[in-house]
Order: sequence, then structure tokens, then C-alpha cells
Amino acid sequence: MDTITVSLGKRSYQIIVGKGALRGLGTAIRKLKLGTHAYVITNSLIRKKHAQALATALRHSRIKVHFKEVADSEKSKSIETASSVLRDLAHYARNKNVFVIAFGGGVVGDLSGFVASVYKRGVPYVQVPTTLLAQVDSAIGGKTALDLTEAKNMVGAIYQPRLVISDTSLLKTLSLRQVQSGLAEAVKYGVIKDAKLFSYLEKNYASALALKDGAIRRVVSCCSRIKAAIVGEDEREERGIRTVLNFGHTAGHALEAAGGYHRLNHGEAIAIGMLVALEISLQMGLITPRVLARIEGLISRIGLPTKAKKIPLKKILQSLKHDKKFKGRKNRFVLSAGIGRTVIKEGIAPALIEKALRKRLQ
Amino acid sequence: MDTITVSLGKRSYQIIVGKGALRGLGTAIRKLKLGTHAYVITNSLIRKKHAQALATALRHSRIKVHFKEVADSEKSKSIETASSVLRDLAHYARNKNVFVIAFGGGVVGDLSGFVASVYKRGVPYVQVPTTLLAQVDSAIGGKTALDLTEAKNMVGAIYQPRLVISDTSLLKTLSLRQVQSGLAEAVKYGVIKDAKLFSYLEKNYASALALKDGAIRRVVSCCSRIKAAIVGEDEREERGIRTVLNFGHTAGHALEAAGGYHRLNHGEAIAIGMLVALEISLQMGLITPRVLARIEGLISRIGLPTKAKKIPLKKILQSLKHDKKFKGRKNRFVLSAGIGRTVIKEGIAPALIEKALRKRLQ
Repeated sequence: MDTITVSLGKRSYQIIVGKGALRGLGTAIRKLKLGTHAYVITNSLIRKKHAQALATALRHSRIKVHFKEVADSEKSKSIETASSVLRDLAHYARNKNVFVIAFGGGVVGDLSGFVASVYKRGVPYVQVPTTLLAQVDSAIGGKTALDLTEAKNMVGAIYQPRLVISDTSLLKTLSLRQVQSGLAEAVKYGVIKDAKLFSYLEKNYASALALKDGAIRRVVSCCSRIKAAIVGEDEREERGIRTVLNFGHTAGHALEAAGGYHRLNHGEAIAIGMLVALEISLQMGLITPRVLARIEGLISRIGLPTKAKKIPLKKILQSLKHDKKFKGRKNRFVLSAGIGRTVIKEGIAPALIEKALRKRLQ
Repeated sequence: MDTITVSLGKRSYQIIVGKGALRGLGTAIRKLKLGTHAYVITNSLIRKKHAQALATALRHSRIKVHFKEVADSEKSKSIETASSVLRDLAHYARNKNVFVIAFGGGVVGDLSGFVASVYKRGVPYVQVPTTLLAQVDSAIGGKTALDLTEAKNMVGAIYQPRLVISDTSLLKTLSLRQVQSGLAEAVKYGVIKDAKLFSYLEKNYASALALKDGAIRRVVSCCSRIKAAIVGEDEREERGIRTVLNFGHTAGHALEAAGGYHRLNHGEAIAIGMLVALEISLQMGLITPRVLARIEGLISRIGLPTKAKKIPLKKILQSLKHDKKFKGRKNRFVLSAGIGRTVIKEGIAPALIEKALRKRLQ
């Protein structure tokens, strides 16, 4: 197993990455004294496939397990679902020393983290991500979120988990499309911070796609290490350090929203969002056409889209206006200054953004 | 004006107490750079009575004001109300540099703090408490809360305001019952921490009830100072210091819940809750009958109830079981060891609690 630490003083925690990491869950929870009763938030598919493994790991340590299913859909990141889960949790938790486990992908992780952060003003929670996207990115760093009809992730908190268990053997049941989506975030880490990871992905994307043990563990560990370091330095995105993680996400979120959250999944939207940011970077002279071509090449070989289909520009521009990272009327983009390097720019001319978007629409 | 500081490092903030304190609101907000657009959460009554004064104070500093009304009822502390306010806020906040003002009593304060804490993972907020209860207690310390049908304050966060403005002239429009309710919390501060405040209240409760400038300002400032010191030492109630503020609240919350939140208001429930805690303290030999009689005397002279009417014991015991401060199966009470001193006891015999409750039911 690889062990990575997110250093946040008293709130520090470990990320355990590897095949079979789940087996250590119960022991780790006992050691951390998180509670005696696990309230596991999950969806029906994950429950069917992996509940047995989770329950066994917990029961070995005499931790009681209760499963709560939510729909496997972005719609579960709503205040309504959070409310119903909170009521169920309050009912279950009576006279119990309860903690929460997020057992699923990004939706389950964001929702569970939110629920844990507000229930009784905060109970401990553990992330057990079951998608590649969640293992390389969303399960780490404590960003919890719900959507409003107005925009994604408008409601939430920064509330750190007490432990992250990224068992790469759980990924075996993912569809190819889900693995590709996760690799989009891995490409992001390479582009923003780690030219070595980027080169590794160029050479080994096929092994990663095939979930070969060595390759997938290396990708998950490497991304986790980068994210852990960034979160440790700038937990609340106050110092402009954590902001770089939003590379590709400004246009990406707008594309997701404009596509009604079904045309593109998160990774696909981020793949195109990165290319939009790269088009802007290119137009501003921050990168050469060769850099863009190299990144587009990797994205394309992974099998991710490089252009968005059937999403009207007008809708994207509308969603973009509501980006919660924008302060007042100023837009803000994370741009590339070459593989491994970023710059943050504010107040980019709308015409430039539109031009970049047009290049990535079909 | 009296200025009291809550010391929490980078999150420190000031409480300004006095007649006309509201007039300094705009200038203070400018100085703190909280934003250009104030989203003011309030109720229709407060808006009718005091909106003019608030708007004037803000417009002098060229801060735009938007009022959002919620019902003047504990029912507004629901996830449903929070959800509707969040949607309205998201709609209003487009392209604006927005912050929240809680303009009302405890309900508005708890709801507004929650909304501010989760909107875009936290926007700044200011407390402008308009009830005595909120000025002496709930507006300070960052406890935000929503209720679940299962129990009060089950959902929330610890999220500090950036400023508290306690303008005692706003209290003039309160009913006598509301002033009495606020004084219940003031009595609590005397009993738990400040024998001098307790004596002051014994001598000057009539002036305080009549909202005489000197007396009411002294009471609000004194309570604010005590609460600020406690919160500064133990913001998250992790060190057993903040816990003492729950004196009277364990039985008090159960009484409120069992009475369906309409038989007793918060201060009345806390008055009886304190007497229940004192009955337990007496039975455990922690105080003399004289101490109990002295406190009961003050509560009674203020015009607060000393016994609960028409609330069935069974219902109270049921609510008590769900106290969110209880860990696992263990109950926990803040007890008195004489005026100005407290002790925290866990695992008190149910028979003893029941006996104490019976003495305070009619």
C-alpha cells in the first residue's frame, strides 16, 4: 500500500492507496476512534457490487454497518436528498456513536461530506471512493457540495475526511467510459503540476485504461500526492495555490451545466474544458501550438472527447457567468504556461473566451 | 459604545454594543471589506420596524441592500426554508460581491449563519440582533443551526460572523415577554460565570426589564464579554469550556420540543431548564437549598416561569434522549456548584433526572 498524508495540523489525515486497501478499513477506524456505528452512504450499484467487502472489513473490527442508498445521479447532490439523508441519519443515530462513510463516486462523496459536515455541526467521515475520478481527485481535500438549480456546487463546506481508502481493486467494475473520465483528471494533474506524470500517462495510458495494477496504482498515488500537497498548503483556496486545481473546470462546469449534466460526464467536460483553457493560453501567447497538440493528443488517445457536440454556445456563456469562483463581475481562469506550469488570469476579454469555446464546439 | 473582541486569530471579530450602534454599520462593513451588496435576511415585523434605519446606515456607505423575509417562527429554521433562501440568494448574487446580514432574533440569526456558511462554501456575514436573547447570547459565537423534525439544532456549522452590532435601541419595540426571555440567558451567565452580574441583576432587573439605557447596555455588554471569552477559548466545544453555556439548555431544549415550540419560548424553557439543573445539583449535594432559592427568586421576579405547565413528563424524557450533546448512551449535564461556578457530570441516574423534572412540572 502507498500511504500519503494530507498535512493540516490537528486535522491531518491519510490516504491509503492500493489493491485490497479496503481490508484495513476497520482497523484504521478503530485506531482513529471515529465511532462504533458506520452510516454508509452509497448507491444501489455499488452496494450490490462491493457492500460485502466493506461490511466484512468493518465487522472484523466489530463496527456496526448501516447502508443508506441514494440515486446514482448528479440529482442526488440536491438539498432535498441531503435533507432526506439527514433525517434518516438522525433517526439511525439515536444513542449511537455514529460516523459517516462515503462509499461511491463523486456524487456520493460530495453529498456524504456535506451531510457529515452539518449533522450535529460535524461528525467524522471516511471517504472510500469507488471511481477513478473520486480516487484521483474528489475524495481528497474536503470540498463537499450540493447543487442548486442555478449552478453546480453552489452549496457546501470545506470539511476534511478523517481517512481516505482508495482501493484500486474496486475500479475493476467500472465501465471504460468511467475510467476514461477519471484519467481526464489525472491528465489535469500532469498539465498543472507534473511533467513526469504527464509523460508517464503518454507512455502508459493503455495500461491505465486496462486498470493494470502497477499503472493504476501509480496514477492514483501520484495524483493523490499532488492534491494532498496543494490542500496542505491552501486548504480554503485563500492563497491562490488550490485554485490551480480548477484548471479546465471553469469551462468544464459550464459545459456540464449547459449539457444538462447528461451530454458530458465530469471527466469528459473537464477534458474539453482543459482544451478551452489551452486555447485561451495559446491565444495569449502563454503556450506554443505544440504544447496544445501534445495535450490534445493524450486526451484523444485516452478516448476522451476534444470537442463538445450539440451544446449551444449561448447556454455555455450563460452558465459561465454564474461561476462561483468569479468575484463580482470579473472572470477568472487557470491557464497553462507549459506542461507542469500554470498562471491565473482575471478579467479575460469575453471575445477571447468565446473564440476559444467556439474552437471546441462541434 | 462598548467594543468587545472575540479572539480567534484571523477569524477574530468585534461586538459593538450601545444605543445607536447600528449607525456605524456601513463604515464597519467598508473597513472589513465584506462586499458591496448586503443580502439581509429578516422577518416582516423587523423589516417594518427597523429596515429604514438599517438601509440608511448601509446606503451612507454606498452598500446596496436587498431584503429577504422569512416567517417569524421556529419553523423558518428548516432545511426547506434554508433551501429557498439559498436559491433566492444565488439568484440575487449573480455578478455581485455579496455578503449576508442576519437582521432579527435567534431564528433569523441561526438560519442566516447557516446560509452564509454553506453558500459557495462560505460568504461573510454580520449579525445585527434585534432581540435581547440574540444580543446577549445567540448572535455571538458562530453556532448556526437548522432543526430536523427529530430534534432542534441537529443541522448546522460553527461559522463565525465578521461583526456583531448590538444596538440596544432596537430592543424598544420588543414585548415584555421577549425581554423577559432574553433576561433568562442573562441570568444564566450570572449563574455559570459571574456572581457580580447575578447580584447586579438582582438589584436592577426592573431597570433592565424597562430597557433603561444604562442597565440594558450593561447587561448586554457583560454577557457578550463572558460569551466572547468562552468562545475565544473553546470555539468548537472541544475542551469542555464552551459546554458550560449549555447550562439549563439540556432540559430546556427538551421542554421546548415537548411543548411543540409554542408552549414555552426559548428563554422561558431555559429558565425552567436551569431550575431542573439546579434541582439535580441540589440532590447531588453540589449546592445548598439557599442557592436554588436565590436563583429561583430572581427568575420569578423577572416574571419568568419556574414550572412548566401542561407538558407531559414522558414527552420531555423522550426529547431528552435525543440531545445532540449526549455521546452514545451517556447523558451529560452542566450543573451548578454555586453562583458563578459549574461542574459537568456525565451518566446521571435517570431516576434523579426524572425526580428533578417532576419538581418543575405543574
